[in-house]
Amino acid sequence: IAQLQKLCRQPSIAAEGVGLEEAAQMVMEMLQALGAKVQGIPVDGGPKMVFGELGEGKKTLAFYDHYDIQPPDPLELWKSDPFAAEIREGYMYSRGVADNKGDLVARICAVDAYQKAVGPLPLRIKFIIEGEEEVGSTHLEEFAKKNKDLIGADAMIWEGSGKDPSERPFLYYGMKGLAYFELRAKGADHDLHSSWGTVAPDPAWRLTWALSTLKDEKENILVEGLMEHFAQPEEKDMELLRQAPFDEEGYRKSFGIAKWLQGWSGLDLKVRHYLWPTCTINGIKTGYQGPGTKTVLPAEAMAKVSFRLVPDLTPELVAKLLRQHLDRRGFKDIEVELLNGELPAKGPVDSAIAQADRRAVKEVYGQEPIIYPMVAGTGPMYPLSTMLGIPVSSGMGVGHADDRIHSPNENIRVEDYIQVIKYNGVLIQKFAEG
Amino acid sequence: IAQLQKLCRQPSIAAEGVGLEEAAQMVMEMLQALGAKVQGIPVDGGPKMVFGELGEGKKTLAFYDHYDIQPPDPLELWKSDPFAAEIREGYMYSRGVADNKGDLVARICAVDAYQKAVGPLPLRIKFIIEGEEEVGSTHLEEFAKKNKDLIGADAMIWEGSGKDPSERPFLYYGMKGLAYFELRAKGADHDLHSSWGTVAPDPAWRLTWALSTLKDEKENILVEGLMEHFAQPEEKDMELLRQAPFDEEGYRKSFGIAKWLQGWSGLDLKVRHYLWPTCTINGIKTGYQGPGTKTVLPAEAMAKVSFRLVPDLTPELVAKLLRQHLDRRGFKDIEVELLNGELPAKGPVDSAIAQADRRAVKEVYGQEPIIYPMVAGTGPMYPLSTMLGIPVSSGMGVGHADDRIHSPNENIRVEDYIQVIKYNGVLIQKFAEG
Repeated sequence: IAQLQKLCRQPSIAAEGVGLEEAAQMVMEMLQALGAKVQGIPVDGGPKMVFGELGEGKKTLAFYDHYDIQPPDPLELWKSDPFAAEIREGYMYSRGVADNKGDLVARICAVDAYQKAVGPLPLRIKFIIEGEEEVGSTHLEEFAKKNKDLIGADAMIWEGSGKDPSERPFLYYGMKGLAYFELRAKGADHDLHSSWGTVAPDPAWRLTWALSTLKDEKENILVEGLMEHFAQPEEKDMELLRQAPFDEEGYRKSFGIAKWLQGWSGLDLKVRHYLWPTCTINGIKTGYQGPGTKTVLPAEAMAKVSFRLVPDLTPELVAKLLRQHLDRRGFKDIEVELLNGELPAKGPVDSAIAQADRRAVKEVYGQEPIIYPMVAGTGPMYPLSTMLGIPVSSGMGVGHADDRIHSPNENIRVEDYIQVIKYNGVLIQKFAEG
Repeated sequence: IAQLQKLCRQPSIAAEGVGLEEAAQMVMEMLQALGAKVQGIPVDGGPKMVFGELGEGKKTLAFYDHYDIQPPDPLELWKSDPFAAEIREGYMYSRGVADNKGDLVARICAVDAYQKAVGPLPLRIKFIIEGEEEVGSTHLEEFAKKNKDLIGADAMIWEGSGKDPSERPFLYYGMKGLAYFELRAKGADHDLHSSWGTVAPDPAWRLTWALSTLKDEKENILVEGLMEHFAQPEEKDMELLRQAPFDEEGYRKSFGIAKWLQGWSGLDLKVRHYLWPTCTINGIKTGYQGPGTKTVLPAEAMAKVSFRLVPDLTPELVAKLLRQHLDRRGFKDIEVELLNGELPAKGPVDSAIAQADRRAVKEVYGQEPIIYPMVAGTGPMYPLSTMLGIPVSSGMGVGHADDRIHSPNENIRVEDYIQVIKYNGVLIQKFAEG
């Protein structure tokens, strides 16, 4: 607990470049204290990568974590200093304590405890700890390509999951990718009086028409050729989702929506959410947006459109298909810029690490974990796992339903943290044995 | 010139409620000085209506003007105080000097000159001068309904037109109406992480799909039933437009556009611009609009959509048809609010006042005016003309191509002002004779 408080009390805000070197140093010292061989690897244009390696054995298990955190704003909503790591009624409150310093320190403590209580590690452990996860892991793919041998492992444990609203532990073996675009249409070189809407180009109309060709009202993605690269979910994945609880009513009420898209429910809803690609309008900006009326023909219109990707969709492929689609539909005038791309990652659901992870959770938590073949969100899992052919599992982490990551009063339960330390020791044992 | 400077030096900003009473009083005094019977008629919730009546004869001619002006912002772009009415190199600069104090004072001066130089007026003249034209003439229709006899006239002269970029005088006999709507779609009761785009409603998509049913890429308005109320342009109107010059290349270059919609040119372009209804997206607002990426599923989406109306379209009719159209297309969830409605007005092109106005312009300006059956913009012409069955003509006014109404450095040419005074005297004579 003191170790975790120490790291939490060191701000390490990637977006602001605050305290990253200090936090990296602190983590390196913690790894050195385990007896690990530790490197702080410089990253051109980014904070250093911390790499630690220790133990001997036939297998190598890699842990991925990050020492950087989100900014703490808005400060006024915190009940205690975000860098005090104060413990109140069994909860520790701090920016980054759940995402993901708690997981990281629990893993370090587990290795320490294993060595002290059991003996030498039964396998080789690698810690791969980056400092810019919260700003898009900009250099991670390049790092992975250059350091294949350094990273090389039989399995990868990701940041760590947590407990769902019903307190059941869950695991996952993949994350969706992302292709996030800005689409722009242009009309006159300045806003015109809207009486010119008769004969002068209206970029708001051009953008509206172009967007409406991308997805239909039945939620079918219409970008030509895109769905040909979508593999229908495998039966193994479907079976896992059949067993995974999903609180349809709870989520529905918390979102304040009358029903899910297309009236989906049950397995259909889960398959759509966890295993399908999406095409989402994240924002549109054009013309007058204030109260009342302004009779303006806008000079420009802009939309942010993102696709969540599942295998075998890639950002580059979607960018190419989107451009071709718009061209074929007569929208050569619509500019398309890929703002951010991340590849989907998906490990096998029956790999040795997947099985060891399930067994470790069952032993420590006394129940079968919920298994999601992949989660609906996106993370930098691809370059460290799928790209290098390394099977991945989320690992159990310190998260819980009200942990408020990225929000004020981020917190973990101290007893969850202790449980995750125990679980990591068991996981090491299970994977070495498995 | 001194009279005009005096009125210009009195700010009368409707949007800010500044100086309206003082300006009304000043106008009333000017009318009284002509010998007119003058009334300041209180308007419930608005600035007073100034009404003046003088002269005797078989016919009655009404002048419509307004004593209120736009705000002068942004002040820093003015080369002289917007309320100094400074004359520099033949131009008078002042907020409101072109829109429309110059026209108003020219009319007053013309009546004065007529009485002094020619003798008693050959007809009855009514001045109808409102104080809230720049904020939508909110109370004008109600006023007109209650004061039919007071307003009643054989013809109405509108604010006044001006000279086009080639220095040719122009006249018009109608203005388009307007139906300005806000459309709103709602999703969850707060923004969601965009990974929920899989199964949770996306109001940006709902709005996009709904909008795309309103108009197609060939510029056909698809709102069911709407175009049935559009009368194809009459041959008389087409003939006027054939003769009216339209600087296609000049406008095109000044807007910075490669071509007009659908490649229209010549008569097609003019007919579309002056005589067709429009459906224009004035603005869309939803989700994230800043730089870079934010993975958000917006809770709301809003669009401002306006229709310019020609006879026999009315705001109420368009509102009804739009609601029905959206309901039939499955968009009952899209909220529609009519924010502003103005009816189209269109006088006959061969009325006695239209003919007298053309003759007066020809005599004073030495050339035939350009005639637009109606203009593409919208003004409160309907309640004072079409509604009461009073033929209307724009009248020639002090406008010119660079008069910058509603902008900094609004100006008129002093010699244009003098010419407009002469023209108004001739117009009175021509209409009385005609």
